[in-house]
Amino acid sequence: MERYEDFWDITEAALRSAVMQLKIDASDAQLDRLMQAYLCPSEFLDARPALDALKGVPLAILSNGSPRMLESAVRHNGLEHYFAEIISADRVKTYKPSPRVYALGTEILNLPASEILFSSSNSWDAAGAKAFGYKVCWCNRSQGQMEHLGFLADVTVLRLDQIAACL
Amino acid sequence: MERYEDFWDITEAALRSAVMQLKIDASDAQLDRLMQAYLCPSEFLDARPALDALKGVPLAILSNGSPRMLESAVRHNGLEHYFAEIISADRVKTYKPSPRVYALGTEILNLPASEILFSSSNSWDAAGAKAFGYKVCWCNRSQGQMEHLGFLADVTVLRLDQIAACL
Repeated sequence: MERYEDFWDITEAALRSAVMQLKIDASDAQLDRLMQAYLCPSEFLDARPALDALKGVPLAILSNGSPRMLESAVRHNGLEHYFAEIISADRVKTYKPSPRVYALGTEILNLPASEILFSSSNSWDAAGAKAFGYKVCWCNRSQGQMEHLGFLADVTVLRLDQIAACL
Repeated sequence: MERYEDFWDITEAALRSAVMQLKIDASDAQLDRLMQAYLCPSEFLDARPALDALKGVPLAILSNGSPRMLESAVRHNGLEHYFAEIISADRVKTYKPSPRVYALGTEILNLPASEILFSSSNSWDAAGAKAFGYKVCWCNRSQGQMEHLGFLADVTVLRLDQIAACL
């Protein structure tokens, strides 16, 4: 449709749609509480050790989340000092796996894609980043199968704190 | 990713992915038989009466299916004489709900979108067609809820043979 809506609005629409389809009787106040939870997700236990192990390497977030969601999630966990950039797909009003979003990483970090290790736990995101040209690490926490999308991650780890060893 | 693959290849990749994820032990010969079934789907019982009721109105198919899949499905059911055009998204190498695909209908029929009744049983397709500008009929066979995508069909029917009455 090419009608961009930001990730906060899409998340709320998806929540309301799921509640309706499952015939769950949820009040607006309850839905609002669930939405607020998206602003303060808990960090995975391996996140901080992973970030510490990467000290000295410029780190950036490149996410489909809206700027408010990303900033809130990072601040809630006290992780803001780790990141040089927090980049939302909102800047180009479309979503990964569009190459326009992946291009934000190279443009803003001012580095070629081949010099950036792009890490994601979503295999479709790993494939999209690889198609764009990044070096790619897939964090396969759930030990699932990589989706067959024509592009494979360069390296697969099971936990975030294994990423530093890939550099 | 913006890497077009035709619908036949995507269908086969999706089938193989589903089989793998569900750990089904299927031979290549079995998968091939399932794929062949996509070339000869059975018509819905209301399809022919619906097409007969629309005689005199130029009819076209606009589908994400590959040209071979569409032609085979129509021919298998002996419906080819009903259609002025069989248009595949393959012509523009992307898929609905991209407006580039919906534009094929207006370009090839040489009519403004507002003079074409676009009918679909997929509510995302009905919403995408409405966003493009068509008059839209949603054939809601399963009596489900229209997805909340910001655009509603102009009219909803439960069976194809109710479409003619919408003109």
